[in-house]
Amino acid sequence: MRLIDGKAVAAQIKQEIAEEVALIKDAGGKTPHLAAVLVGHDGGSETYVSSKVRTCEELGFKSTLIRYEEDVTEEELLACVNRLNDDADIDGFIVQLPLPKHISEEKITDAIDYRKDVDGFHPVNVGRMSLGMSCFLSATPAGIVELLKRYKIETKGRHCVVLGRSNIVGKPVSMLMMQKGYPGDCTVTVCHSRTENIKEICLQADIIIAALGVPGFLKGDMVKEGAVVIDVGTTRVPSNKTKSGFKLTGDVMFDEVAPKCAWITPVPGGVGPMTIVSLMKNTLLAGKKEIYSK
Amino acid sequence: MRLIDGKAVAAQIKQEIAEEVALIKDAGGKTPHLAAVLVGHDGGSETYVSSKVRTCEELGFKSTLIRYEEDVTEEELLACVNRLNDDADIDGFIVQLPLPKHISEEKITDAIDYRKDVDGFHPVNVGRMSLGMSCFLSATPAGIVELLKRYKIETKGRHCVVLGRSNIVGKPVSMLMMQKGYPGDCTVTVCHSRTENIKEICLQADIIIAALGVPGFLKGDMVKEGAVVIDVGTTRVPSNKTKSGFKLTGDVMFDEVAPKCAWITPVPGGVGPMTIVSLMKNTLLAGKKEIYSK
Repeated sequence: MRLIDGKAVAAQIKQEIAEEVALIKDAGGKTPHLAAVLVGHDGGSETYVSSKVRTCEELGFKSTLIRYEEDVTEEELLACVNRLNDDADIDGFIVQLPLPKHISEEKITDAIDYRKDVDGFHPVNVGRMSLGMSCFLSATPAGIVELLKRYKIETKGRHCVVLGRSNIVGKPVSMLMMQKGYPGDCTVTVCHSRTENIKEICLQADIIIAALGVPGFLKGDMVKEGAVVIDVGTTRVPSNKTKSGFKLTGDVMFDEVAPKCAWITPVPGGVGPMTIVSLMKNTLLAGKKEIYSK
Repeated sequence: MRLIDGKAVAAQIKQEIAEEVALIKDAGGKTPHLAAVLVGHDGGSETYVSSKVRTCEELGFKSTLIRYEEDVTEEELLACVNRLNDDADIDGFIVQLPLPKHISEEKITDAIDYRKDVDGFHPVNVGRMSLGMSCFLSATPAGIVELLKRYKIETKGRHCVVLGRSNIVGKPVSMLMMQKGYPGDCTVTVCHSRTENIKEICLQADIIIAALGVPGFLKGDMVKEGAVVIDVGTTRVPSNKTKSGFKLTGDVMFDEVAPKCAWITPVPGGVGPMTIVSLMKNTLLAGKKEIYSK
Protein backbone atom coordinates (compact mmCIF):
# COMPACT_ATOMS: atom_id res chain seq x y z
CA MET A 1 0.00 0.00 0.00
CA ARG A 2 1.22 3.42 -0.90
CA LEU A 3 -0.17 6.67 0.39
CA ILE A 4 -1.32 9.43 -1.94
CA ASP A 5 0.07 12.42 -0.14
CA GLY A 6 -2.32 15.24 -0.97
CA LYS A 7 -0.56 17.58 1.40
CA ALA A 8 2.77 17.15 -0.38
CA VAL A 9 1.24 17.45 -3.85
CA ALA A 10 -0.69 20.54 -2.77
CA ALA A 11 2.51 22.08 -1.43
CA GLN A 12 4.25 21.32 -4.72
CA ILE A 13 1.46 22.91 -6.77
CA LYS A 14 1.36 25.91 -4.46
CA GLN A 15 5.03 26.44 -5.10
CA GLU A 16 4.45 26.21 -8.87
CA ILE A 17 1.64 28.75 -8.63
CA ALA A 18 3.66 31.10 -6.40
CA GLU A 19 6.54 31.00 -8.88
CA GLU A 20 4.23 31.81 -11.76
CA VAL A 21 2.60 34.67 -9.85
CA ALA A 22 6.05 36.10 -9.04
CA LEU A 23 6.93 36.00 -12.74
CA ILE A 24 3.67 37.69 -13.67
CA LYS A 25 4.26 40.43 -11.14
CA ASP A 26 7.89 40.88 -12.24
CA ALA A 27 6.67 41.34 -15.78
CA GLY A 28 4.27 44.04 -14.59
CA GLY A 29 1.21 41.82 -14.98
CA LYS A 30 -1.89 41.79 -12.87
CA THR A 31 -1.85 40.23 -9.42
CA PRO A 32 -4.57 37.56 -9.27
CA HIS A 33 -7.32 38.73 -6.95
CA LEU A 34 -9.77 36.40 -5.20
CA ALA A 35 -12.73 37.62 -3.19
CA ALA A 36 -14.60 35.44 -0.73
CA VAL A 37 -18.05 36.16 0.65
CA LEU A 38 -18.81 34.64 4.03
CA VAL A 39 -22.26 34.73 5.58
CA GLY A 40 -22.66 34.03 9.30
CA HIS A 41 -20.27 32.19 11.59
CA ASP A 42 -20.55 28.47 10.79
CA GLY A 43 -17.43 26.80 12.14
CA GLY A 44 -16.63 24.84 9.00
CA SER A 45 -17.19 27.81 6.71
CA GLU A 46 -15.01 30.05 8.91
CA THR A 47 -12.18 27.52 8.71
CA TYR A 48 -12.45 27.04 4.94
CA VAL A 49 -12.62 30.73 4.15
CA SER A 50 -9.76 31.73 6.41
CA SER A 51 -7.67 28.95 4.93
CA LYS A 52 -8.47 30.25 1.44
CA VAL A 53 -7.50 33.79 2.39
CA ARG A 54 -4.28 32.56 4.01
CA THR A 55 -3.39 30.55 0.92
CA CYS A 56 -3.92 33.63 -1.25
CA GLU A 57 -1.35 35.47 0.86
CA GLU A 58 1.10 32.54 0.65
CA LEU A 59 0.88 32.51 -3.13
CA GLY A 60 1.16 36.26 -3.65
CA PHE A 61 -2.50 36.68 -4.63
CA LYS A 62 -4.55 39.62 -3.52
CA SER A 63 -7.60 38.62 -1.50
CA THR A 64 -10.70 40.33 -0.21
CA LEU A 65 -12.97 38.94 2.47
CA ILE A 66 -16.52 40.23 2.62
CA ARG A 67 -18.55 39.25 5.67
CA TYR A 68 -22.26 39.36 6.27
CA GLU A 69 -24.24 38.43 9.34
CA GLU A 70 -26.67 35.50 9.27
CA ASP A 71 -29.60 37.90 8.72
CA VAL A 72 -28.37 39.40 5.44
CA THR A 73 -31.18 39.47 2.88
CA GLU A 74 -31.06 37.74 -0.48
CA GLU A 75 -31.26 41.15 -2.16
CA GLU A 76 -28.23 42.45 -0.27
CA LEU A 77 -26.25 39.34 -1.17
CA LEU A 78 -27.28 39.57 -4.84
CA ALA A 79 -26.23 43.22 -4.87
CA CYS A 80 -22.84 42.16 -3.48
CA VAL A 81 -22.49 39.52 -6.20
CA ASN A 82 -23.28 42.12 -8.83
CA ARG A 83 -20.69 44.51 -7.42
CA LEU A 84 -18.07 41.75 -7.54
CA ASN A 85 -19.13 40.85 -11.10
CA ASP A 86 -18.53 44.45 -12.13
CA ASP A 87 -15.31 45.01 -10.21
CA ALA A 88 -12.55 44.80 -12.82
CA ASP A 89 -9.84 44.21 -10.23
CA ILE A 90 -11.46 41.02 -8.94
CA ASP A 91 -10.59 38.06 -11.14
CA GLY A 92 -12.64 35.48 -9.34
CA PHE A 93 -14.82 35.14 -6.28
CA ILE A 94 -16.66 32.59 -4.23
CA VAL A 95 -19.69 32.72 -2.02
CA GLN A 96 -19.01 30.17 0.71
CA LEU A 97 -21.78 27.60 1.00
CA PRO A 98 -23.97 26.64 2.81
CA LEU A 99 -26.03 29.83 3.00
CA PRO A 100 -28.79 30.49 5.55
CA LYS A 101 -32.11 28.93 4.60
CA HIS A 102 -33.84 32.17 3.64
CA ILE A 103 -31.37 32.64 0.77
CA SER A 104 -31.56 30.59 -2.42
CA GLU A 105 -28.12 29.12 -3.14
CA GLU A 106 -29.26 28.46 -6.69
CA LYS A 107 -30.14 32.11 -7.23
CA ILE A 108 -26.84 33.32 -5.81
CA THR A 109 -24.72 30.84 -7.79
CA ASP A 110 -26.64 31.70 -10.94
CA ALA A 111 -26.01 35.42 -10.42
CA ILE A 112 -22.23 35.00 -10.35
CA ASP A 113 -20.61 35.90 -13.66
CA TYR A 114 -19.44 32.49 -14.91
CA ARG A 115 -16.18 34.09 -16.02
CA LYS A 116 -15.43 34.81 -12.34
CA ASP A 117 -16.93 31.58 -10.99
CA VAL A 118 -13.68 30.04 -9.73
CA ASP A 119 -15.66 27.52 -7.65
CA GLY A 120 -16.96 26.08 -10.94
CA PHE A 121 -20.51 25.84 -9.57
CA HIS A 122 -22.26 27.98 -12.21
CA PRO A 123 -24.37 26.07 -14.78
CA VAL A 124 -22.15 27.34 -17.61
CA ASN A 125 -19.03 25.85 -16.04
CA VAL A 126 -20.83 22.63 -15.07
CA GLY A 127 -22.19 22.30 -18.60
CA ARG A 128 -18.87 23.07 -20.28
CA MET A 129 -17.14 20.52 -18.09
CA SER A 130 -19.69 17.88 -19.01
CA LEU A 131 -19.21 18.73 -22.69
CA GLY A 132 -15.43 18.48 -22.37
CA MET A 133 -14.89 22.20 -23.05
CA SER A 134 -12.43 24.46 -21.22
CA CYS A 135 -13.96 25.83 -18.03
CA PHE A 136 -13.42 26.43 -14.34
CA LEU A 137 -13.45 22.90 -12.97
CA SER A 138 -15.04 22.63 -9.58
CA ALA A 139 -12.34 22.35 -6.96
CA THR A 140 -12.78 18.92 -5.38
CA PRO A 141 -13.22 16.94 -8.62
CA ALA A 142 -10.32 18.85 -10.14
CA GLY A 143 -8.18 18.05 -7.08
CA ILE A 144 -8.99 14.34 -7.32
CA VAL A 145 -8.08 14.18 -10.99
CA GLU A 146 -4.88 16.13 -10.35
CA LEU A 147 -3.83 13.63 -7.66
CA LEU A 148 -4.31 10.72 -10.06
CA LYS A 149 -2.25 12.58 -12.64
CA ARG A 150 0.62 13.50 -10.33
CA TYR A 151 0.87 9.88 -9.16
CA LYS A 152 0.60 8.67 -12.78
CA ILE A 153 -2.19 6.29 -11.82
CA GLU A 154 -3.52 4.50 -14.90
CA THR A 155 -7.20 5.16 -15.57
CA LYS A 156 -7.85 3.99 -19.14
CA GLY A 157 -10.35 1.14 -19.21
CA ARG A 158 -10.36 0.95 -15.41
CA HIS A 159 -13.64 0.59 -13.58
CA CYS A 160 -14.13 3.66 -11.42
CA VAL A 161 -16.90 3.47 -8.84
CA VAL A 162 -18.07 6.82 -7.49
CA LEU A 163 -19.97 6.73 -4.20
CA GLY A 164 -22.29 9.72 -4.04
CA ARG A 165 -24.15 11.80 -6.62
CA SER A 166 -23.78 15.29 -5.21
CA ASN A 167 -23.57 18.29 -7.51
CA ILE A 168 -20.19 19.29 -6.12
CA VAL A 169 -18.37 15.94 -6.12
CA GLY A 170 -20.13 12.78 -7.28
CA LYS A 171 -21.67 13.98 -10.52
CA PRO A 172 -18.78 16.13 -11.77
CA VAL A 173 -16.04 13.64 -10.88
CA SER A 174 -17.97 10.90 -12.67
CA MET A 175 -18.06 13.11 -15.77
CA LEU A 176 -14.30 13.76 -15.56
CA MET A 177 -13.43 10.09 -15.09
CA MET A 178 -15.41 9.03 -18.17
CA GLN A 179 -14.05 11.87 -20.34
CA LYS A 180 -11.82 10.95 -23.28
CA GLY A 181 -8.09 11.05 -22.57
CA TYR A 182 -6.02 10.95 -19.40
CA PRO A 183 -6.98 11.04 -16.60
CA GLY A 184 -10.26 9.60 -17.82
CA ASP A 185 -11.39 6.84 -20.17
CA CYS A 186 -12.74 4.96 -17.15
CA THR A 187 -15.83 2.85 -17.13
CA VAL A 188 -17.74 4.75 -14.45
CA THR A 189 -20.41 3.56 -12.04
CA VAL A 190 -22.19 6.03 -9.79
CA CYS A 191 -23.69 4.61 -6.60
CA HIS A 192 -25.76 6.42 -3.99
CA SER A 193 -28.26 5.97 -1.20
CA ARG A 194 -30.66 4.10 -3.52
CA THR A 195 -28.07 1.62 -4.75
CA GLU A 196 -28.98 -1.90 -3.68
CA ASN A 197 -25.85 -4.00 -4.11
CA ILE A 198 -23.19 -1.42 -3.29
CA LYS A 199 -20.73 -3.91 -1.77
CA GLU A 200 -20.82 -6.11 -4.84
CA ILE A 201 -20.24 -3.11 -7.10
CA CYS A 202 -17.39 -1.75 -4.99
CA LEU A 203 -15.69 -5.15 -5.15
CA GLN A 204 -15.48 -4.75 -8.94
CA ALA A 205 -13.84 -1.35 -8.74
CA ASP A 206 -10.26 -0.62 -9.78
CA ILE A 207 -10.72 2.92 -8.47
CA ILE A 208 -13.18 3.97 -5.76
CA ILE A 209 -13.99 7.62 -5.14
CA ALA A 210 -15.92 7.78 -1.87
CA ALA A 211 -17.95 10.97 -1.54
CA LEU A 212 -21.03 10.03 0.45
CA GLY A 213 -20.22 12.00 3.57
CA VAL A 214 -20.88 8.90 5.71
CA PRO A 215 -17.93 8.35 8.09
CA GLY A 216 -16.34 4.93 7.72
CA PHE A 217 -18.81 3.78 5.06
CA LEU A 218 -16.30 1.85 2.93
CA LYS A 219 -15.18 -1.24 4.82
CA GLY A 220 -12.32 -3.62 4.17
CA ASP A 221 -14.56 -6.34 2.74
CA MET A 222 -15.90 -3.95 0.07
CA VAL A 223 -12.57 -3.39 -1.68
CA LYS A 224 -10.64 -5.72 -3.94
CA GLU A 225 -6.88 -6.23 -3.71
CA GLY A 226 -4.91 -3.62 -5.59
CA ALA A 227 -7.65 -1.00 -5.77
CA VAL A 228 -7.03 2.74 -5.71
CA VAL A 229 -9.16 4.46 -3.07
CA ILE A 230 -9.82 8.20 -2.98
CA ASP A 231 -11.55 9.35 0.19
CA VAL A 232 -13.46 12.60 -0.24
CA GLY A 233 -15.30 12.40 3.07
CA THR A 234 -14.63 15.20 5.54
CA THR A 235 -17.26 14.81 8.22
CA ARG A 236 -16.54 16.60 11.47
CA VAL A 237 -16.90 14.04 14.20
CA PRO A 238 -16.76 15.21 17.85
CA SER A 239 -13.50 14.24 19.51
CA ASN A 240 -11.93 14.96 22.87
CA LYS A 241 -8.47 14.29 21.50
CA THR A 242 -8.16 17.46 19.46
CA LYS A 243 -7.96 21.12 20.42
CA SER A 244 -10.85 22.01 18.11
CA GLY A 245 -13.13 19.39 19.71
CA PHE A 246 -13.69 17.46 16.50
CA LYS A 247 -11.74 15.48 13.97
CA LEU A 248 -12.19 15.22 10.22
CA THR A 249 -13.36 11.73 9.37
CA GLY A 250 -13.35 10.17 5.92
CA ASP A 251 -15.84 7.84 4.24
CA VAL A 252 -13.26 5.06 4.30
CA MET A 253 -12.42 2.75 7.20
CA PHE A 254 -8.76 3.44 6.61
CA ASP A 255 -7.24 0.76 8.83
CA GLU A 256 -9.23 -2.01 7.17
CA VAL A 257 -9.10 -0.74 3.60
CA ALA A 258 -5.54 0.56 3.28
CA PRO A 259 -3.76 -2.84 3.47
CA LYS A 260 -5.67 -4.00 0.37
CA CYS A 261 -5.00 -0.89 -1.71
CA ALA A 262 -2.40 -0.11 -4.32
CA TRP A 263 -2.94 3.55 -3.50
CA ILE A 264 -5.08 5.35 -0.94
CA THR A 265 -5.63 8.92 0.23
CA PRO A 266 -5.65 9.61 3.97
CA VAL A 267 -8.08 11.95 5.75
CA PRO A 268 -6.91 14.53 6.56
CA GLY A 269 -4.06 15.20 4.17
CA GLY A 270 -5.53 13.61 1.03
CA VAL A 271 -8.13 15.30 -1.13
CA GLY A 272 -8.72 18.16 1.31
CA PRO A 273 -5.52 20.14 0.67
CA MET A 274 -6.02 19.71 -3.09
CA THR A 275 -9.38 21.44 -3.00
CA ILE A 276 -8.00 24.82 -1.99
CA VAL A 277 -5.16 24.45 -4.45
CA SER A 278 -7.64 23.84 -7.28
CA LEU A 279 -9.44 27.03 -6.32
CA MET A 280 -6.15 28.92 -6.43
CA LYS A 281 -5.37 27.44 -9.83
CA ASN A 282 -8.72 28.63 -11.13
CA THR A 283 -8.05 32.08 -9.73
CA LEU A 284 -4.68 32.17 -11.48
CA LEU A 285 -6.36 31.10 -14.75
CA ALA A 286 -8.99 33.79 -14.21
CA GLY A 287 -6.30 36.41 -13.64
CA LYS A 288 -4.57 35.34 -16.85
CA LYS A 289 -7.93 35.26 -18.68
CA GLU A 290 -7.00 31.84 -19.94
CA ILE A 291 -10.41 30.22 -19.86
CA TYR A 292 -12.56 33.16 -20.84
CA SER A 293 -10.88 35.95 -22.72
CA LYS A 294 -12.97 38.79 -21.36
CA MET B 1 -41.23 -9.68 -23.87
CA ARG B 2 -43.22 -6.55 -24.37
CA LEU B 3 -42.51 -3.87 -26.92
CA ILE B 4 -42.08 -0.22 -25.94
CA ASP B 5 -43.99 1.43 -28.73
CA GLY B 6 -42.31 4.78 -29.21
CA LYS B 7 -44.42 5.55 -32.21
CA ALA B 8 -47.65 5.16 -30.27
CA VAL B 9 -46.38 7.15 -27.28
CA ALA B 10 -45.12 9.87 -29.59
CA ALA B 11 -48.52 10.03 -31.29
CA GLN B 12 -50.20 10.29 -27.91
CA ILE B 13 -47.90 13.13 -26.78
CA LYS B 14 -48.33 14.92 -30.11
CA GLN B 15 -52.06 14.85 -29.55
CA GLU B 16 -51.62 16.27 -26.05
CA ILE B 17 -49.42 19.05 -27.41
CA ALA B 18 -51.78 19.81 -30.30
CA GLU B 19 -54.69 20.11 -27.86
CA GLU B 20 -52.73 22.48 -25.65
CA VAL B 21 -51.67 24.61 -28.61
CA ALA B 22 -55.27 24.82 -29.77
CA LEU B 23 -56.31 26.02 -26.31
CA ILE B 24 -53.52 28.61 -26.26
CA LYS B 25 -54.56 29.93 -29.66
CA ASP B 26 -58.23 30.00 -28.67
CA ALA B 27 -57.31 32.10 -25.65
CA GLY B 28 -55.49 34.54 -27.93
CA GLY B 29 -52.05 33.35 -26.82
CA LYS B 30 -48.90 33.13 -28.88
CA THR B 31 -48.47 30.34 -31.42
CA PRO B 32 -45.24 28.46 -30.62
CA HIS B 33 -42.71 29.17 -33.34
CA LEU B 34 -39.74 26.91 -34.09
CA ALA B 35 -37.02 27.84 -36.56
CA ALA B 36 -34.60 25.29 -38.03
CA VAL B 37 -31.34 26.13 -39.73
CA LEU B 38 -30.11 23.56 -42.24
CA VAL B 39 -26.68 23.77 -43.86
CA GLY B 40 -25.97 21.72 -46.99
CA HIS B 41 -27.81 18.66 -48.24
CA ASP B 42 -26.80 15.72 -46.03
CA GLY B 43 -29.45 13.03 -46.46
CA GLY B 44 -29.94 12.38 -42.76
CA SER B 45 -30.13 16.07 -41.89
CA GLU B 46 -32.63 16.73 -44.70
CA THR B 47 -34.85 13.95 -43.37
CA TYR B 48 -34.66 15.10 -39.75
CA VAL B 49 -35.32 18.73 -40.53
CA SER B 50 -38.22 18.09 -42.87
CA SER B 51 -39.73 15.78 -40.30
CA LYS B 52 -39.40 18.51 -37.66
CA VAL B 53 -41.06 21.06 -39.92
CA ARG B 54 -43.85 18.63 -40.75
CA THR B 55 -44.45 17.89 -37.08
CA CYS B 56 -44.70 21.63 -36.35
CA GLU B 57 -47.49 21.87 -38.90
CA GLU B 58 -49.25 18.84 -37.45
CA LEU B 59 -49.22 20.37 -33.97
CA GLY B 60 -50.31 23.84 -35.00
CA PHE B 61 -46.87 25.41 -34.42
CA LYS B 62 -45.45 28.01 -36.71
CA SER B 63 -42.16 26.94 -38.29
CA THR B 64 -39.43 28.62 -40.29
CA LEU B 65 -36.81 26.78 -42.29
CA ILE B 66 -33.60 28.62 -43.09
CA ARG B 67 -31.27 26.97 -45.59
CA TYR B 68 -27.63 27.61 -46.34
CA GLU B 69 -25.39 25.97 -48.86
CA GLU B 70 -22.39 23.90 -47.73
CA ASP B 71 -20.05 26.87 -48.30
CA VAL B 72 -21.72 29.27 -45.85
CA THR B 73 -19.12 30.97 -43.64
CA GLU B 74 -19.03 30.74 -39.88
CA GLU B 75 -19.63 34.49 -39.73
CA GLU B 76 -22.77 34.25 -41.84
CA LEU B 77 -24.09 31.43 -39.69
CA LEU B 78 -23.30 33.33 -36.47
CA ALA B 79 -25.11 36.35 -37.85
CA CYS B 80 -28.11 34.15 -38.57
CA VAL B 81 -28.02 32.79 -35.00
CA ASN B 82 -27.95 36.33 -33.66
CA ARG B 83 -30.91 37.36 -35.79
CA LEU B 84 -32.88 34.39 -34.46
CA ASN B 85 -31.82 35.23 -30.90
CA ASP B 86 -33.22 38.72 -31.36
CA ASP B 87 -36.39 37.77 -33.21
CA ALA B 88 -39.15 38.05 -30.60
CA ASP B 89 -41.56 35.91 -32.62
CA ILE B 90 -39.24 32.91 -32.60
CA ASP B 91 -39.57 30.94 -29.37
CA GLY B 92 -36.93 28.37 -30.08
CA PHE B 93 -34.59 27.30 -32.85
CA ILE B 94 -32.17 24.60 -33.76
CA VAL B 95 -29.12 24.48 -35.99
CA GLN B 96 -29.13 20.97 -37.42
CA LEU B 97 -25.87 19.14 -36.77
CA PRO B 98 -23.44 18.03 -38.13
CA LEU B 99 -22.10 21.23 -39.69
CA PRO B 100 -19.42 21.40 -42.41
CA LYS B 101 -15.89 21.06 -41.05
CA HIS B 102 -14.93 24.71 -41.54
CA ILE B 103 -17.57 25.76 -39.02
CA SER B 104 -17.11 25.24 -35.27
CA GLU B 105 -20.18 23.48 -33.88
CA GLU B 106 -19.10 24.57 -30.42
CA LYS B 107 -19.05 28.23 -31.41
CA ILE B 108 -22.46 28.04 -33.07
CA THR B 109 -24.08 26.17 -30.17
CA ASP B 110 -22.55 28.61 -27.71
CA ALA B 111 -23.92 31.59 -29.65
CA ILE B 112 -27.52 30.38 -29.39
CA ASP B 113 -29.45 32.15 -26.63
CA TYR B 114 -29.91 29.37 -24.09
CA ARG B 115 -33.48 30.54 -23.56
CA LYS B 116 -34.21 29.56 -27.19
CA ASP B 117 -31.99 26.45 -27.20
CA VAL B 118 -34.78 23.89 -27.59
CA ASP B 119 -32.22 21.23 -28.57
CA GLY B 120 -30.79 21.54 -25.04
CA PHE B 121 -27.21 21.54 -26.36
CA HIS B 122 -26.07 24.88 -24.87
CA PRO B 123 -23.75 24.64 -21.84
CA VAL B 124 -26.30 26.43 -19.66
CA ASN B 125 -28.95 23.80 -20.37
CA VAL B 126 -26.47 20.94 -20.06
CA GLY B 127 -25.24 22.35 -16.74
CA ARG B 128 -28.70 22.99 -15.36
CA MET B 129 -29.75 19.46 -16.29
CA SER B 130 -26.74 18.04 -14.50
CA LEU B 131 -27.55 20.17 -11.44
CA GLY B 132 -31.18 19.01 -11.47
CA MET B 133 -32.51 22.48 -12.31
CA SER B 134 -35.32 23.23 -14.77
CA CYS B 135 -33.97 23.51 -18.32
CA PHE B 136 -34.47 22.46 -21.91
CA LEU B 137 -33.62 18.76 -21.76
CA SER B 138 -31.87 17.53 -24.83
CA ALA B 139 -34.32 15.66 -26.99
CA THR B 140 -33.09 12.07 -27.11
CA PRO B 141 -32.37 11.67 -23.35
CA ALA B 142 -35.70 13.36 -22.60
CA GLY B 143 -37.46 10.99 -24.99
CA ILE B 144 -35.90 7.94 -23.33
CA VAL B 145 -36.92 9.06 -19.86
CA GLU B 146 -40.42 9.85 -21.08
CA LEU B 147 -40.80 6.33 -22.51
CA LEU B 148 -39.81 4.78 -19.16
CA LYS B 149 -42.33 7.04 -17.46
CA ARG B 150 -45.22 6.32 -19.80
CA TYR B 151 -44.64 2.58 -19.42
CA LYS B 152 -44.29 2.99 -15.65
CA ILE B 153 -41.00 1.08 -15.69
CA GLU B 154 -39.45 1.00 -12.22
CA THR B 155 -36.03 2.64 -12.03
CA LYS B 156 -35.31 3.17 -8.32
CA GLY B 157 -32.28 1.18 -7.23
CA ARG B 158 -32.04 -0.50 -10.63
CA HIS B 159 -28.68 -0.84 -12.31
CA CYS B 160 -28.78 1.14 -15.54
CA VAL B 161 -25.91 0.53 -17.95
CA VAL B 162 -25.44 3.24 -20.57
CA LEU B 163 -23.41 2.24 -23.63
CA GLY B 164 -21.78 5.36 -25.07
CA ARG B 165 -20.52 8.64 -23.63
CA SER B 166 -21.58 11.10 -26.30
CA ASN B 167 -22.52 14.65 -25.39
CA ILE B 168 -25.97 14.26 -26.89
CA VAL B 169 -27.02 10.89 -25.47
CA GLY B 170 -24.67 8.91 -23.23
CA LYS B 171 -23.59 11.60 -20.80
CA PRO B 172 -26.93 13.40 -20.40
CA VAL B 173 -29.02 10.24 -20.10
CA SER B 174 -26.63 8.92 -17.44
CA MET B 175 -27.16 12.14 -15.49
CA LEU B 176 -30.95 11.83 -15.78
CA MET B 177 -30.99 8.19 -14.71
CA MET B 178 -28.96 8.89 -11.55
CA GLN B 179 -31.01 11.99 -10.65
CA LYS B 180 -33.12 11.86 -7.48
CA GLY B 181 -36.75 10.89 -8.02
CA TYR B 182 -38.62 9.11 -10.79
CA PRO B 183 -37.54 8.27 -13.42
CA GLY B 184 -34.10 8.17 -11.88
CA ASP B 185 -32.52 6.89 -8.67
CA CYS B 186 -30.67 4.29 -10.75
CA THR B 187 -27.20 3.05 -10.06
CA VAL B 188 -25.63 4.10 -13.36
CA THR B 189 -22.67 2.62 -15.21
CA VAL B 190 -21.34 4.33 -18.34
CA CYS B 191 -19.43 2.09 -20.76
CA HIS B 192 -17.69 3.13 -23.98
CA SER B 193 -15.01 2.15 -26.46
CA ARG B 194 -12.38 1.92 -23.69
CA THR B 195 -14.43 -0.36 -21.47
CA GLU B 196 -12.75 -3.72 -21.09
CA ASN B 197 -15.39 -6.10 -19.72
CA ILE B 198 -18.47 -4.70 -21.38
CA LYS B 199 -20.27 -8.04 -21.65
CA GLU B 200 -19.86 -8.76 -17.97
CA ILE B 201 -21.17 -5.30 -17.07
CA CYS B 202 -24.15 -5.55 -19.42
CA LEU B 203 -25.10 -8.87 -17.85
CA GLN B 204 -25.55 -7.05 -14.53
CA ALA B 205 -27.88 -4.45 -15.99
CA ASP B 206 -31.55 -4.15 -15.17
CA ILE B 207 -31.82 -1.41 -17.79
CA ILE B 208 -29.52 -1.04 -20.81
CA ILE B 209 -29.48 2.14 -22.86
CA ALA B 210 -27.49 1.41 -26.01
CA ALA B 211 -26.16 4.55 -27.68
CA LEU B 212 -22.87 3.57 -29.26
CA GLY B 213 -23.94 3.91 -32.87
CA VAL B 214 -22.55 0.44 -33.61
CA PRO B 215 -25.18 -1.63 -35.44
CA GLY B 216 -26.04 -4.88 -33.67
CA PHE B 217 -23.48 -4.32 -30.88
CA LEU B 218 -25.63 -5.73 -28.07
CA LYS B 219 -25.97 -9.48 -28.52
CA GLY B 220 -28.28 -11.95 -26.83
CA ASP B 221 -25.57 -13.33 -24.55
CA MET B 222 -24.91 -9.85 -23.11
CA VAL B 223 -28.35 -9.36 -21.58
CA LYS B 224 -29.85 -10.94 -18.48
CA GLU B 225 -33.37 -12.30 -18.33
CA GLY B 226 -35.95 -9.65 -17.57
CA ALA B 227 -33.85 -6.65 -18.57
CA VAL B 228 -35.25 -3.47 -20.07
CA VAL B 229 -33.42 -2.53 -23.28
CA ILE B 230 -33.58 0.90 -24.88
CA ASP B 231 -31.98 1.03 -28.32
CA VAL B 232 -30.83 4.51 -29.30
CA GLY B 233 -28.84 3.41 -32.35
CA THR B 234 -30.00 4.77 -35.69
CA THR B 235 -27.23 3.93 -38.10
CA ARG B 236 -28.17 4.07 -41.77
CA VAL B 237 -27.14 0.76 -43.26
CA PRO B 238 -27.38 0.32 -47.06
CA SER B 239 -30.27 -1.91 -48.04
CA ASN B 240 -31.82 -2.95 -51.34
CA LYS B 241 -35.11 -3.72 -49.66
CA THR B 242 -36.18 -0.14 -49.04
CA LYS B 243 -37.10 2.69 -51.36
CA SER B 244 -34.56 5.02 -49.74
CA GLY B 245 -31.73 2.53 -50.28
CA PHE B 246 -30.91 2.21 -46.57
CA LYS B 247 -32.49 1.03 -43.38
CA LEU B 248 -32.18 2.40 -39.87
CA THR B 249 -30.32 -0.12 -37.75
CA GLY B 250 -30.15 -0.13 -33.98
CA ASP B 251 -27.29 -1.00 -31.61
CA VAL B 252 -29.21 -4.06 -30.44
CA MET B 253 -29.39 -7.44 -32.15
CA PHE B 254 -33.16 -7.38 -31.72
CA ASP B 255 -33.98 -10.98 -32.61
CA GLU B 256 -31.50 -12.36 -30.07
CA VAL B 257 -32.06 -9.83 -27.31
CA ALA B 258 -35.83 -9.32 -27.38
CA PRO B 259 -36.82 -12.79 -26.12
CA LYS B 260 -34.84 -12.18 -22.90
CA CYS B 261 -36.25 -8.72 -22.21
CA ALA B 262 -39.08 -7.55 -20.01
CA TRP B 263 -39.29 -4.49 -22.24
CA ILE B 264 -37.50 -3.46 -25.40
CA THR B 265 -37.69 -0.62 -27.92
CA PRO B 266 -37.64 -1.49 -31.63
CA VAL B 267 -35.68 0.40 -34.30
CA PRO B 268 -37.34 2.14 -36.01
CA GLY B 269 -40.37 3.08 -33.95
CA GLY B 270 -38.73 3.21 -30.50
CA VAL B 271 -36.65 6.14 -29.32
CA GLY B 272 -36.59 7.84 -32.74
CA PRO B 273 -40.15 9.18 -32.80
CA MET B 274 -39.73 10.39 -29.19
CA THR B 275 -36.83 12.64 -30.12
CA ILE B 276 -38.86 14.93 -32.34
CA VAL B 277 -41.66 14.98 -29.81
CA SER B 278 -39.24 16.10 -27.08
CA LEU B 279 -38.12 18.95 -29.32
CA MET B 280 -41.74 19.97 -29.83
CA LYS B 281 -42.35 19.84 -26.09
CA ASN B 282 -39.38 22.14 -25.52
CA THR B 283 -40.72 24.51 -28.16
CA LEU B 284 -44.09 24.57 -26.44
CA LEU B 285 -42.39 25.27 -23.10
CA ALA B 286 -40.37 28.03 -24.78
CA GLY B 287 -43.52 29.56 -26.23
CA LYS B 288 -45.12 29.52 -22.79
CA LYS B 289 -41.92 30.90 -21.22
CA GLU B 290 -42.15 28.13 -18.66
CA ILE B 291 -38.45 27.39 -18.23
CA TYR B 292 -37.02 30.87 -18.60
CA SER B 293 -39.35 33.74 -17.92
CA LYS B 294 -37.87 36.17 -20.42
